[in-house]
Amino acid sequence: MSKVALLMGSKSDSDIAAKAAETLTGLGIESDTLVLSAHRTPDEATTFAKQAAEQGYSAIIGIAGLAAHLPGVLASHTLLPVIGVPRSAGPLNGVDALYSIVQMPPGIPVASVGIDNATNAALLAARIIALSDEGVRAKLAAYVKEMHDKILAGG
Amino acid sequence: MSKVALLMGSKSDSDIAAKAAETLTGLGIESDTLVLSAHRTPDEATTFAKQAAEQGYSAIIGIAGLAAHLPGVLASHTLLPVIGVPRSAGPLNGVDALYSIVQMPPGIPVASVGIDNATNAALLAARIIALSDEGVRAKLAAYVKEMHDKILAGG
Amino acid sequence: MSKVALLMGSKSDSDIAAKAAETLTGLGIESDTLVLSAHRTPDEATTFAKQAAEQGYSAIIGIAGLAAHLPGVLASHTLLPVIGVPRSAGPLNGVDALYSIVQMPPGIPVASVGIDNATNAALLAARIIALSDEGVRAKLAAYVKEMHDKILAGG
Amino acid sequence: MSKVALLMGSKSDSDIAAKAAETLTGLGIESDTLVLSAHRTPDEATTFAKQAAEQGYSAIIGIAGLAAHLPGVLASHTLLPVIGVPRSAGPLNGVDALYSIVQMPPGIPVASVGIDNATNAALLAARIIALSDEGVRAKLAAYVKEMHDKILAGG
Amino acid sequence: MSKVALLMGSKSDSDIAAKAAETLTGLGIESDTLVLSAHRTPDEATTFAKQAAEQGYSAIIGIAGLAAHLPGVLASHTLLPVIGVPRSAGPLNGVDALYSIVQMPPGIPVASVGIDNATNAALLAARIIALSDEGVRAKLAAYVKEMHDKILAGG
Amino acid sequence: MSKVALLMGSKSDSDIAAKAAETLTGLGIESDTLVLSAHRTPDEATTFAKQAAEQGYSAIIGIAGLAAHLPGVLASHTLLPVIGVPRSAGPLNGVDALYSIVQMPPGIPVASVGIDNATNAALLAARIIALSDEGVRAKLAAYVKEMHDKILAGG
Amino acid sequence: MSKVALLMGSKSDSDIAAKAAETLTGLGIESDTLVLSAHRTPDEATTFAKQAAEQGYSAIIGIAGLAAHLPGVLASHTLLPVIGVPRSAGPLNGVDALYSIVQMPPGIPVASVGIDNATNAALLAARIIALSDEGVRAKLAAYVKEMHDKILAGG
Amino acid sequence: MSKVALLMGSKSDSDIAAKAAETLTGLGIESDTLVLSAHRTPDEATTFAKQAAEQGYSAIIGIAGLAAHLPGVLASHTLLPVIGVPRSAGPLNGVDALYSIVQMPPGIPVASVGIDNATNAALLAARIIALSDEGVRAKLAAYVKEMHDKILAGG
Repeated sequence: MSKVALLMGSKSDSDIAAKAAETLTGLGIESDTLVLSAHRTPDEATTFAKQAAEQGYSAIIGIAGLAAHLPGVLASHTLLPVIGVPRSAGPLNGVDALYSIVQMPPGIPVASVGIDNATNAALLAARIIALSDEGVRAKLAAYVKEMHDKILAGG
Repeated sequence: MSKVALLMGSKSDSDIAAKAAETLTGLGIESDTLVLSAHRTPDEATTFAKQAAEQGYSAIIGIAGLAAHLPGVLASHTLLPVIGVPRSAGPLNGVDALYSIVQMPPGIPVASVGIDNATNAALLAARIIALSDEGVRAKLAAYVKEMHDKILAGG
Repeated sequence: MSKVALLMGSKSDSDIAAKAAETLTGLGIESDTLVLSAHRTPDEATTFAKQAAEQGYSAIIGIAGLAAHLPGVLASHTLLPVIGVPRSAGPLNGVDALYSIVQMPPGIPVASVGIDNATNAALLAARIIALSDEGVRAKLAAYVKEMHDKILAGG
Repeated sequence: MSKVALLMGSKSDSDIAAKAAETLTGLGIESDTLVLSAHRTPDEATTFAKQAAEQGYSAIIGIAGLAAHLPGVLASHTLLPVIGVPRSAGPLNGVDALYSIVQMPPGIPVASVGIDNATNAALLAARIIALSDEGVRAKLAAYVKEMHDKILAGG
Repeated sequence: MSKVALLMGSKSDSDIAAKAAETLTGLGIESDTLVLSAHRTPDEATTFAKQAAEQGYSAIIGIAGLAAHLPGVLASHTLLPVIGVPRSAGPLNGVDALYSIVQMPPGIPVASVGIDNATNAALLAARIIALSDEGVRAKLAAYVKEMHDKILAGG
Repeated sequence: MSKVALLMGSKSDSDIAAKAAETLTGLGIESDTLVLSAHRTPDEATTFAKQAAEQGYSAIIGIAGLAAHLPGVLASHTLLPVIGVPRSAGPLNGVDALYSIVQMPPGIPVASVGIDNATNAALLAARIIALSDEGVRAKLAAYVKEMHDKILAGG
Repeated sequence: MSKVALLMGSKSDSDIAAKAAETLTGLGIESDTLVLSAHRTPDEATTFAKQAAEQGYSAIIGIAGLAAHLPGVLASHTLLPVIGVPRSAGPLNGVDALYSIVQMPPGIPVASVGIDNATNAALLAARIIALSDEGVRAKLAAYVKEMHDKILAGG
Repeated sequence: MSKVALLMGSKSDSDIAAKAAETLTGLGIESDTLVLSAHRTPDEATTFAKQAAEQGYSAIIGIAGLAAHLPGVLASHTLLPVIGVPRSAGPLNGVDALYSIVQMPPGIPVASVGIDNATNAALLAARIIALSDEGVRAKLAAYVKEMHDKILAGG
């Protein structure tokens, strides 16, 4: 069974991380949440990324604000798909984090979702896992159907 | 064997698409390149997205500039992972396309890479495929090793 | 008699939609308000746009935030004038929605008004309808006169 | 028969104006092109706007760069729909003109299209005219069909 | 004796206008405050500008938010120095108003001060008037001295 | 007779300065052009500003790019009106210089014109001088008339 | 023993200055806090900078918002390293101050840290002092260790 | 004797690095230039930073474009002062790199200079070294004097 690693650079991102974890749980995907900073615990973040594949993770979600180097640093130490969630922390409202996450140099990709959009990070991880997991695919289809019906019922 | 769909909104994006296709080929991944516009051929784009999974695609890469709705429109008609490449077409230098691709509403995720960064779109697709394809994983590892050695050799 | 369709991508836009509806009503123009999402109910949104002309609408107003694809998606399935209202939802304060709505590719136009400016969307629809409806033109003239007098009376 | 007024603030916008005129001609819509500046010929611009309706225009397209007040000034002196085309003149690449055109205060609407996108300004005027002109509607439909077929033929 | 006209586009700018008026009063300069909109009362705004010189004004301060055409429209109908105060009204925080006020085309100048900075608009008018008014110059010097001493006293 | 000081922070601004000087000459206003840097010759810049009034200048125009502190530094050492011209030097295209010039703190005003718009800086100085110089006022009126006629003659 | 000068342009920056002072104290570095404005007390600011080296300071931290000329003005009168802290004061959220501080012309460097990030200004000063002060280096190492352990303990 | 490490993320930054090296040489400071990427050679970059102090470097200059994580990654593995030079590579003209370099989280400082401003990075390093090296201080003073005289000689 697939699982997803949820890393955040600071405890202040924990509400965002919880939203991603909850979405994953609803889709039948296990996740582990950790606080690891690209700058304050660089060795531990590096080690985590290097070992993530063999520890059974299928994708890593990195949540970070400001300079937001975490997703890129993780992506440089693993071949797993890394998804970045820019946080709207600070006076630049997340534009700094978005640019820092999405503008990775050619060679080391990070998949950026929208600012603070932990739900979409979880759904992107689920779409990746659903490629080889029929159960997750079914749950994703149901999720999309439920959204659809809710909109038709008036939002 | 996995394959990737490369869609672009306009023929003017074909150099970018070729770069992605070439990167995928180098990693042993088949790809099909199509010109389909979210706005000028909306029905065909929609139909393509709806059938992409059953036609054997593992991921869709959508390349688009300006309002750049293509990746989001595709993502709303498939459960496959959709990767968006914002193009630096026009006077806003791709900021318009980046915002339009990455700021999807919660529920329908698109994975954005950097502006014009077709290489990273291909590599992200390869990381996704590598989860279930040892051969691609090995080629990805070799790719990363080669980049690494080139830098150490002076860039 | 002319009528206008007011579509919003999410129920959270309903206060904005109500403002547009109220302005239209004041100008003697009928309107229908619907929640339809370009991404979460794409088929229904498409179908609505395809049938809007024959259902008697003279213009469609699409209200959307973030990636804000709704007006563009509607415009690609109808020949009616489509007016987009970018919403200031999220940390980018509506710059994302504005760019996404206004930067449509050549061929499929959307008329953008200012961020959150549902009043101007309604007035723009009214100016369009007034071309062939003397009554609406008279009401518009009165509206402009009233604004003018209010400013002269001190704002 | 409907006609459209094409106003530009400076002769340097004439290539953009020509593009709009050519698109209108292709759709069977007559147009007149004038150079009139909101700041350098304010009285003439004002007079033009005040008389535009009785002179038989159905819409006014205002093309302007930098502070780009022209469309807004025109809109304040007419009840016709006014469409603004922000120009990418100067070091701000048209962001200044876009904001100045689209952010009109509630009460006096301007319909903004994308930066330099004279084609869409013409198409928007055509959609407005098509509401009461079957011939223009048919030509618009053919225009859209042609674009669609061109994309399917490879862009 | 010199006097300054303070025009604002909307009553919602009256706190800003009051700040400018108060600063002018403190410097011994008379001022008149009016609500006049470039778009909602264009003829009155134009007439005011055309007559401002002969009515004894030495400078006009125009306060406006959003598209903020007021200072530019005034400047096109007078040869007096026009000072613009961009307002931080709306979701773009005044960047729209700043660009619209400062990016006037060559030929019709507007002097822009900082966003919401009515104090500096008044001081700029005072520096202009002080060129030919020794009393105002002395009061300005005292104002600057007082600021200086306040900073040295700890802010 | 009035004269204007034209200061630029670097010789690379001399084409812009020449444009301002030429415009002033055309309006019958004398000007002196100097290269003085707020950062590289701070004492000389300060001394110049302190003596500018007694040396007969009526206004100072400061032309600067990048951090563009020159106009603000001059304004803090004189009571003359100081006009700033932000230069589009460097990768930020003059947005840096514009913000740095226009966002002066309350107390020390700088009059900003548009990016690279030396013509408007000269015209603003001329409007200030015209308050007490009938000859300049007449030349300004002729300048505006000529512009007006040129536009009416087709731009 | 080394000490650091903390200058702020306005008393409203005193909470930020206090944060820097506190961080320095924790690292065993003495600091003096002063309110001095580049524009309102230019002579005193200049004099301070000219004498800072001989008064025993090893670095100067300049805290400023809006046009934020203070750090650059200080750097032009000393050879000490000057660190700038852009403040998020005003409607531009500190982007103005950041550009003004960081975009210094070649020749007079200012070291910018992040918006409002007084902690990093203090730590940068400490890294500079630690080059020649073993005690500060040890305290810095402990500071980094403590941050690291706090993250590992959950943030 | 002090020396400075010049690291760049890609060989395409070598002209910028050469400018910094040349400036340092002119000030009598030794430097070593290396190509090391935060993402493509993360282990080597990390190792370099960890050993930089004991290898005799007094400061590290990191030159990087796009996501530009290099300076921040280096700073997280050393206590030396790290100076970042954002590069204007790519369609965002260096705004991405600037934000990514300057907006480091509290705890790990990076000193940012202006976009592409390698000269100021070198001068900042020189100011730091000059604190304990009289010879460098004298050369810096001569450098500043030469700039000053060049400006006075007409730029």
